[in-house]
Amino acid sequence: MDDTSARILVRALGDHQTRARRSLNLTPSENTMSPLARLPLALDVYSRYFFDHMRLFGSWSFYGGLEPGRIELEVLAPLLREAAQASYVDIRPISGLNCMTVAMAALCPPGGTMYTVPVAGGGHMSTVAVAARLGIRTVPLPMRDHHDLDLDRMEGLLRSDPPDLIYVDQSTQLFPLDPKPVRDLVDRLAPAALIHYDSSHTNGLILGGALANPLERGAHTFGGSTHKTLPGPHKGFLATNDPRLAERIDGIAGDFVSHHHLGEVVSLAVTLVELRQCGGAEYARAVLDNARTLAQDLHRRGLEVAASDRAFTDCHQVWVRARRGTDPDRAADRMFEQGLMVNKLSGLPGLDGTAFRLSVAEATRLGAGAAEMSTLAGALDTLLSGDPRDIAEEVAALRSALSTPRYCYGAAEVAAMGAPREMVDLMQAIETANAAG
Amino acid sequence: MDDTSARILVRALGDHQTRARRSLNLTPSENTMSPLARLPLALDVYSRYFFDHMRLFGSWSFYGGLEPGRIELEVLAPLLREAAQASYVDIRPISGLNCMTVAMAALCPPGGTMYTVPVAGGGHMSTVAVAARLGIRTVPLPMRDHHDLDLDRMEGLLRSDPPDLIYVDQSTQLFPLDPKPVRDLVDRLAPAALIHYDSSHTNGLILGGALANPLERGAHTFGGSTHKTLPGPHKGFLATNDPRLAERIDGIAGDFVSHHHLGEVVSLAVTLVELRQCGGAEYARAVLDNARTLAQDLHRRGLEVAASDRAFTDCHQVWVRARRGTDPDRAADRMFEQGLMVNKLSGLPGLDGTAFRLSVAEATRLGAGAAEMSTLAGALDTLLSGDPRDIAEEVAALRSALSTPRYCYGAAEVAAMGAPREMVDLMQAIETANAAG
Repeated sequence: MDDTSARILVRALGDHQTRARRSLNLTPSENTMSPLARLPLALDVYSRYFFDHMRLFGSWSFYGGLEPGRIELEVLAPLLREAAQASYVDIRPISGLNCMTVAMAALCPPGGTMYTVPVAGGGHMSTVAVAARLGIRTVPLPMRDHHDLDLDRMEGLLRSDPPDLIYVDQSTQLFPLDPKPVRDLVDRLAPAALIHYDSSHTNGLILGGALANPLERGAHTFGGSTHKTLPGPHKGFLATNDPRLAERIDGIAGDFVSHHHLGEVVSLAVTLVELRQCGGAEYARAVLDNARTLAQDLHRRGLEVAASDRAFTDCHQVWVRARRGTDPDRAADRMFEQGLMVNKLSGLPGLDGTAFRLSVAEATRLGAGAAEMSTLAGALDTLLSGDPRDIAEEVAALRSALSTPRYCYGAAEVAAMGAPREMVDLMQAIETANAAG
Repeated sequence: MDDTSARILVRALGDHQTRARRSLNLTPSENTMSPLARLPLALDVYSRYFFDHMRLFGSWSFYGGLEPGRIELEVLAPLLREAAQASYVDIRPISGLNCMTVAMAALCPPGGTMYTVPVAGGGHMSTVAVAARLGIRTVPLPMRDHHDLDLDRMEGLLRSDPPDLIYVDQSTQLFPLDPKPVRDLVDRLAPAALIHYDSSHTNGLILGGALANPLERGAHTFGGSTHKTLPGPHKGFLATNDPRLAERIDGIAGDFVSHHHLGEVVSLAVTLVELRQCGGAEYARAVLDNARTLAQDLHRRGLEVAASDRAFTDCHQVWVRARRGTDPDRAADRMFEQGLMVNKLSGLPGLDGTAFRLSVAEATRLGAGAAEMSTLAGALDTLLSGDPRDIAEEVAALRSALSTPRYCYGAAEVAAMGAPREMVDLMQAIETANAAG
C-alpha cells in the first residue's frame, strides 16, 4: 500500500498544528474557536440534516438531525435575534459570500441597480462580479479620503440614478461606514431603495455592542459571515426587522441553500451562548481598545501606520507597512517562520504598495490586553524592520501567556450539564490539542 | 448566570450522540465519516484560509493556512483528478448547491436556455429557481416511465428549442441517467450545447468505479457534493477534461466562493486517500449490491417497493411504502424512536402518496453486507407494518455488529506517521465518541 499521500497529509496537518500552538494569528478574516464550539464539528451531528418541516408541513421528513435541530430553534434563533436586535433572522447561508449572494438576489431585482463600495474604498472583490451574474447593474459609491462616503456626490447620484439596493460592504476597513446619513439621504431622495449592510468583518463587534447595530442606524437588513471578529464557525446569517424583507430573504435562501450545515449551526449556537454568558461585550470593547493601542505603539516606533491623522482605527483592523528598505514579501515570510501569521495586501485604501492588514481579534479572544499589545508591537517592529534576530521563542512565550483564555465552558462544566462521558473526553482532547504549547 | 441555553444545547447534543451510536442512518443525503476525516474539523486548520497566491501572483498573502494548503495542492487535487478521471478539477465550491450555482453560472449565459430534470422525474427542487435568478430560462427534459429520458421527444425538443446547457441532476433517483445517448443527440442536433452532470448523490459510486464516469459517457462537466454516497465532509467539486470549460468554472468559482473552507479541504483529502487505499471500489460495489438485496427482501415480504419490474435500483436508493393501513408519519416517528433514521417524502417519481427514500450507503460504509441487509429488512418490515413491538435493542445490536468499520487509518497508524501526541489522542477520542455503543 502506497501511503505517500497519507504521510504528506498527516505530516502537514501535524506541522501546522504544532506551529499554530506557538503562533499568534493576526489575519482579519480568521479567528479561533472555543473547545465547545469545535465539539459538534467532530460529532455525528456534523453529517446530519435538519429542516423545520414540522412547522412548514406539519410533519418531519428528515429524521437524522431531529434532536440537534432543537438547538437551531430553541437556542440559535432566539439568541441571534436578541444579539442582532432583529425580529427576523435567517441562519441558512453557509458562508459570507453565500450571504452576499442571497442578500443581493433577495433584495435587488434582475435588471436593477445597486450601489457598491468600490474595491479601492475597501469593498469586497467579488461584489461586482456576483451582482453582474445576477443581472444587477452596479454603480460605485462615491468615496472621499479613502475611508468615508462622499455624501454630497451621493446626493447627486441618488437624484440622477436612484438604486434599488445600496450594498455596504468593507472587507478592508478601518472606519466602519455608518448607514445613518445614507438612510437619511435615501428617505429623502430615493425612498424605494434598500440598504443592506454586509457586516462579515465586524459581526463580533456589532453583536457584542461595541459597534452600533446597523438596523438601528438605518440599514434595512444586515448580516454576513460568523468567523472573523465573531469567533465562530464558517456560517452566515441575515437579519431584519421588516417582515416583507424577511419573507424575500426566506424565499431566496430556500433556493440558494439546500442543507445549511447542522454542525456549524450548533457551533454558532455555542459561540453566541458563550459570548452572552462570558464577556462577549468585554471582548468586543477590548478588540477596539487593543487595535488602537497596537496601532499607536507601532506608530510611535516610527512605522507607517494608516490613518495616523484620525487615531488609526475604529475596528479590529490595523494597517501597517514594512520599514523603508525592508522587502515586505520577505518580511511576511519571516513573520510566518517566527510565528506571526499575517495578511499581506497591495492596494489598501490610502496606502501605497504592499502593506499588512492586521487584526487583533484573535489575540483578544485569547485574552490579550494592553501589555500583550506592547509585546506584540515589539515583535512586529523587529520583523517589519528586517531585523534578522530570531524571536520565535518570544512569540511562543506570548502565545503561551494566553494559554488559558476564558472560553466559558470547560469539559468539567459540560460534564456537569449531563453530557455523556465520551463527549466530555472528546471536548477535553480538543482543548488540549488546541492549547498553546 | 442563566445557563438555560447552554443546558438545552449540551443536552440535545448529548442525546443525539447517544442515539446516533445505537442507530442506523438510512437517509440518502447523509453518511458517516472516518475519525481521520473528522480530525481536521476539530483542529486549528478549520479556522484558516488558504489561497494559492504563490501560483497566481508569485508570493503568498494569507499565511494562516500555508502548511495545510500543501494538502490541497499535493494530495486533494491530484487524487481527485485521478478518481474523477479528469484533467481539471475545481475544489472551491463549499456545498452541492454552491456547485450547482457555480456550474450554471459558468456554463450557461444569462438569457440562455437550460434543460433540467423535472422534480417529478427526480430533479432537485432548487434547480429551476436558481436558474431563474441567474437569468436562465429552463425547459423540462421529457421523461418516460418516471425514471428515463424520452429520447424521441428530446430529439424534437433539441430541433425546436436548442439549449445552451443540459443540467442532468437527480436527487431522488433509482436509475442514474446515462449522458451517452443525450450526448449523441446533442452532437448531431445541437452541437453548441453543453451537458453538466450533477453527481451529488452518486459521487461515492462514480469515484469508486461502480457507476460509469460521466465524462467518459459524454458529459462535458460533472460534480456535486461530497457527503452523500461519498462519505466525506460538506464540500463540492467540479471536474472536466475541457480546458476552456475549466477556465470558465475557475473564473466563476473565484467570484461565488470567497474562502473555500480549509478544514473541509483536508477532510475531503482524507476521504479520497482512505477510499483509494482501503477499498473505495469495494465499498461502491457493495452499496449497489446491498441496495438491491434490501429492495428484493422488502419486496418478498410483500411491501410495495418501487420499480419491482426492473430490479428495483441501480444506485444507493431504495424506495418503499408503508403497508396499507399503516400511517407513514407515525411509522417514521416510530422508526426514529427505534433507531432507524429515514427520509419520508411525498411525490417520489412513480410512487403515489407518502413513501420512504432509503439509502444503504452509510450502513455499507460501516461494513454491512447481505446478512445485515436481511436483518435490516426485518426491522424495516416491523415498523412499516405498524407492528408495535419494541425493536430498539435489535437495531442497536445491528449497529453494534458494525462497530469496527475498516476506516483505513486508526490512531496508531497516524501516530506511526509522526503525528503529534495530542493530535493522536484527539483522533482516538473522536473514534471512541462516534463508535457504536
